[in-house]
Amino acid sequence: MEIVSEVNHENKESPKSETPILDSINSPKDLIKFSTTELEKLCSELRHDLITRVNKVGGHFASSLGVTELTVALHYSFKTPEDKIVWDVGHQAYVHKILTGRREQMTKVRTFGGISGFPKRDESVYDSFGVAHAGTSISAALGMLEANKHTGANHHSVAVIGDGAMTAGMAFEALNHAGHLHKNLIVILNDNEMSIAPNVGALSLAFSQAITGKFSTVARKHFKSLAEKGLIPKPFYRFIDKAEEATQGFLSTPAMLFGSFGFRYLGPVDGHNISQLIDTFERAKEQDGPVLIHVLTTKGKGYAPAEIDPVKYHAITANQLSDEESAIDESGTIKKVPAGISYTKVFGTSLVEICKSNPKVVGITAAMPDGTGLSQLAEQLPGQFYDVGIAEQHAVTFAAGLACEGIRPVCAIYSTFLQRAYDQVLHDVCIQNLPVIFVLDRAGLVGSDGPTHHGVFDLSYLRSLPNMTVMCPSDESELRNMLYTAIDHTSGPIAIRYPRGNIASGVINFSKPFEKIKIGSSQLVEGETSGTVCILSLGHTKTLAIKVRDKLEKEGIKTSIYDPRFVKPLDSKLLEHAAKNFQLLVTTEDHVLMGGFGSAVAEQLADTNSLPQKGLLRIGIPDKFIEHGTQQELYNEIGLSVEGIYNSIKNKL
Amino acid sequence: MEIVSEVNHENKESPKSETPILDSINSPKDLIKFSTTELEKLCSELRHDLITRVNKVGGHFASSLGVTELTVALHYSFKTPEDKIVWDVGHQAYVHKILTGRREQMTKVRTFGGISGFPKRDESVYDSFGVAHAGTSISAALGMLEANKHTGANHHSVAVIGDGAMTAGMAFEALNHAGHLHKNLIVILNDNEMSIAPNVGALSLAFSQAITGKFSTVARKHFKSLAEKGLIPKPFYRFIDKAEEATQGFLSTPAMLFGSFGFRYLGPVDGHNISQLIDTFERAKEQDGPVLIHVLTTKGKGYAPAEIDPVKYHAITANQLSDEESAIDESGTIKKVPAGISYTKVFGTSLVEICKSNPKVVGITAAMPDGTGLSQLAEQLPGQFYDVGIAEQHAVTFAAGLACEGIRPVCAIYSTFLQRAYDQVLHDVCIQNLPVIFVLDRAGLVGSDGPTHHGVFDLSYLRSLPNMTVMCPSDESELRNMLYTAIDHTSGPIAIRYPRGNIASGVINFSKPFEKIKIGSSQLVEGETSGTVCILSLGHTKTLAIKVRDKLEKEGIKTSIYDPRFVKPLDSKLLEHAAKNFQLLVTTEDHVLMGGFGSAVAEQLADTNSLPQKGLLRIGIPDKFIEHGTQQELYNEIGLSVEGIYNSIKNKL
Repeated sequence: MEIVSEVNHENKESPKSETPILDSINSPKDLIKFSTTELEKLCSELRHDLITRVNKVGGHFASSLGVTELTVALHYSFKTPEDKIVWDVGHQAYVHKILTGRREQMTKVRTFGGISGFPKRDESVYDSFGVAHAGTSISAALGMLEANKHTGANHHSVAVIGDGAMTAGMAFEALNHAGHLHKNLIVILNDNEMSIAPNVGALSLAFSQAITGKFSTVARKHFKSLAEKGLIPKPFYRFIDKAEEATQGFLSTPAMLFGSFGFRYLGPVDGHNISQLIDTFERAKEQDGPVLIHVLTTKGKGYAPAEIDPVKYHAITANQLSDEESAIDESGTIKKVPAGISYTKVFGTSLVEICKSNPKVVGITAAMPDGTGLSQLAEQLPGQFYDVGIAEQHAVTFAAGLACEGIRPVCAIYSTFLQRAYDQVLHDVCIQNLPVIFVLDRAGLVGSDGPTHHGVFDLSYLRSLPNMTVMCPSDESELRNMLYTAIDHTSGPIAIRYPRGNIASGVINFSKPFEKIKIGSSQLVEGETSGTVCILSLGHTKTLAIKVRDKLEKEGIKTSIYDPRFVKPLDSKLLEHAAKNFQLLVTTEDHVLMGGFGSAVAEQLADTNSLPQKGLLRIGIPDKFIEHGTQQELYNEIGLSVEGIYNSIKNKL
Repeated sequence: MEIVSEVNHENKESPKSETPILDSINSPKDLIKFSTTELEKLCSELRHDLITRVNKVGGHFASSLGVTELTVALHYSFKTPEDKIVWDVGHQAYVHKILTGRREQMTKVRTFGGISGFPKRDESVYDSFGVAHAGTSISAALGMLEANKHTGANHHSVAVIGDGAMTAGMAFEALNHAGHLHKNLIVILNDNEMSIAPNVGALSLAFSQAITGKFSTVARKHFKSLAEKGLIPKPFYRFIDKAEEATQGFLSTPAMLFGSFGFRYLGPVDGHNISQLIDTFERAKEQDGPVLIHVLTTKGKGYAPAEIDPVKYHAITANQLSDEESAIDESGTIKKVPAGISYTKVFGTSLVEICKSNPKVVGITAAMPDGTGLSQLAEQLPGQFYDVGIAEQHAVTFAAGLACEGIRPVCAIYSTFLQRAYDQVLHDVCIQNLPVIFVLDRAGLVGSDGPTHHGVFDLSYLRSLPNMTVMCPSDESELRNMLYTAIDHTSGPIAIRYPRGNIASGVINFSKPFEKIKIGSSQLVEGETSGTVCILSLGHTKTLAIKVRDKLEKEGIKTSIYDPRFVKPLDSKLLEHAAKNFQLLVTTEDHVLMGGFGSAVAEQLADTNSLPQKGLLRIGIPDKFIEHGTQQELYNEIGLSVEGIYNSIKNKL
């Protein structure tokens, strides 16, 4: 049975062709005026516009280039914002933003006060759901669809999810429920065979079988001919007949996979063919159950230097390259990376060194080999490296399994993404007291990725867990030593958290021997063991504390700085001493104040009834979500800066 | 190609048949001595032993009865403890415990000082991985298998996972990675079509297609005959040939589903046929990649009254039934439920009342309709009820999607299971400030389920999240009013946490009108607004505080009790007042001290430099995992009791 699309998009009136089509688009509703040929021209304009604007500021663009036709076709076929489109992760939503009234604002994307790099509900009614972490779109879109039942609305609901994000477990939880509810949820699998890192896992192979496998096509033709000759029994013939409704892919692995979840599979569809996309969407809308549309796209489509402005493009790339990190990060973001050595690099290099001398140490990443610095390990000691895909939950429990057998797993997961595995850290690692090493990069405010990516909750969610040790290096040399200490710490789980960005000193001596740090020991950084102000500066805030101290000392205020190093266990002797020998205790941390390091200090001081004379001043991130901007802009905004800390201390004194 | 099993288990020497076979088993290694017929007899003895012993103490048994043959066959085929068996969730591991040296201890299962109801690494070397939350087994078993590569060991690794647990997203993350690593991981899908609640979701239907569908068998035969006649082309013939290696299920949905993840599918196998199980395991071991064995079992097999002791069995059932909860709980546990009204019942009944008057309120459970009290809603207003399967992550983001469209979702998830959705609470609900209502039953120490189930981290992990409101009712009437308040709270997410067990008063008036509680307001319970001791008793600890106050007042110590009601926002005015007007502030909470309610109080008192004269005394759960036992035994152990609180206060004064 062939479903005939009612959309005829070839015979539309054509607007003037001399002005860019894009200029005539004020909202997605304008798209309906255009023919397929014009929509194709529009895509070309969108690509050019995107690259031109994003180049000015930096930002994700490769994934958006890949979904240009898909985005146009979606807004053409669906009536947004009434119909809901949920973009998984959201790196690919730049074209969507341009089409939905934010074209001019693209030059300010991801900058302080500018629009977000991700869809965001309070930015536009067209952004039906805020996203950033992988695998949420199907659940959210299903919720919005099911709401129709209670509100009497009748909108469509579409989740657009990449093949990388599809490895996140919650996507499968959602598929299972969607199949059960049997509503017309439309899931678009945007298959570009490349998410953030090259895809990992069996699924990636399975998807590709729809594309490269000739088997199903051959078999299908043969069945048809057998059926016509009466050589195939009736139930089987009906099966074939039903399968023939799909454009392709009967017996293909993805068709069977999604079929298991009760989804009708449509595809694969050429994601750069607007007509085919629109036809498929129209057909998908008419199904009475959930549909998965397998769309094949090429990431960065149209980005080849020749298609744009090769000179300009190359120039920008060159400017943005540094020795340490590539200009396009793991999420397809053009980054302005200041030259220097990142904490990531320090960790990656040090881990390789440790792994070389201890073959039982292995590194684990959840699809972020570059971002976490593990790509060095992958290159040099691939046998000691694991990339499990976007699957933080599995990463942690897999590590727990390895640890049971005496392996020393180093789970390198961004602070924000370890949130996804909170239960596994607690239930599989801490309860069993297994010696898994957690390395949390991007802890603290991360900058332009904004609130979904700030790693500012880890101290709260880790320090309340029994058996856990939590460390925070104040500089690159301490990071090296903490990693070394962690590997040596076989009596239970241990975590190291450090920020995004470059080390303050700009230089590091990788040949310096590792030193073991005593668990729970702090260190005096500057000043005497008594005085007026004692700053316990956690992690990289030491750099600020040193400058604050300079200012205070100039005014005759005796100030000391301690590097606490451990959030758990706290150096309680230091606290006891400091409370007695200073008038004011100050904690500084790149973390929320609720439940963080300062909170742990407050607990001990209150428990021992030993607040110093002028009390405790906790400086960190207030109880609100911090938006995007450069790290410096954000720190300044919340007063986690030299000026901010200095002023707070002066006020308290 | 037929693989011939090398195990011949029919011709073994037979031990004396007059004594029970079970008595001659000291370790799983003894199993190899027996013939299939004897193993069958052993299974019958195991069932009898299990029921007899577990009846004495209460505990899971239905799922263990269902896997008796499976357990015997596993320990027969695999060389444990060298080979690793990981039992997902672990409710089904009682027979495993009996076979691995814990037969006598089964009469003390789940009791204070007795063995755990779950596999536990420090209990036995045969318990390769501690479990309880669903879906962890594949990840852990894969980690243990992969460890071989680094240790030079060569053990097998088997995950046994129920069809219910298979809906947990992390199981799919693990399948994907296992397919990628392509080692001989053996996953046993224990399909009893009934996990904790009747299974939800499309997958459940898909699994059953392997069992009931006659189609694949018919088609397979037909293909064979066509191939023999030369009517099928070579590539297709090879495909059939390969598929024929499986005992059944070619073209069945589960075969295709697991095939997508790179698993060879074997099954379905009759889970009560020892020979077939052993043959399949031997075959599975010989594969060079991951294998999924689909085993069909009947939960509670052999439990029919006629098979055991009907009189005794019925008597026990009758004794254990109460009006409020059935004797067999959601996890197949025989419970000794004291007569009374549970918090669960108060919530369930109140929610139905609210849902009747507001059709936009819906209840969501992750496979726990009975445990959460939502079964009442399911029965009375099924259109406002959702069971999403064991899929807490999806539950929360699905709720977020509903909330976007103006629906009022009530996510009822045990405190311990909401840990699984921590990132979704943060990333999908709090960042977007969506008005989702979280209802956390089993908050605090839960008793015999032990450390994996104690809900003692929720205040830490929730209160650090911006936009979140956290409430804790001190009694049944406050629970009703807090639920009402939460429904009315449309400006952001809100959580209510309350304990397992019955309300203290034993009576509740469901016809009393709801009252709205002012967000962030506490309440004076007993005493004056000034005095010596001020107890801020969170939640059900109010009951203890009242008795403590009686004792203190008898000694002339002026004591007041406040019900804080909110952990976030704190009633800061109360704290300010209390710090000035009492000598000692005491917080009591059924939660870890690190980062909990008392921690929030300590933060404010330290920030405002206003500790009362004798300081703050925080009473709650210390920084260690608390084992299993009755709730009362556990509270006594940690001093969260009348005597414990009283003594702590006296010491501090």
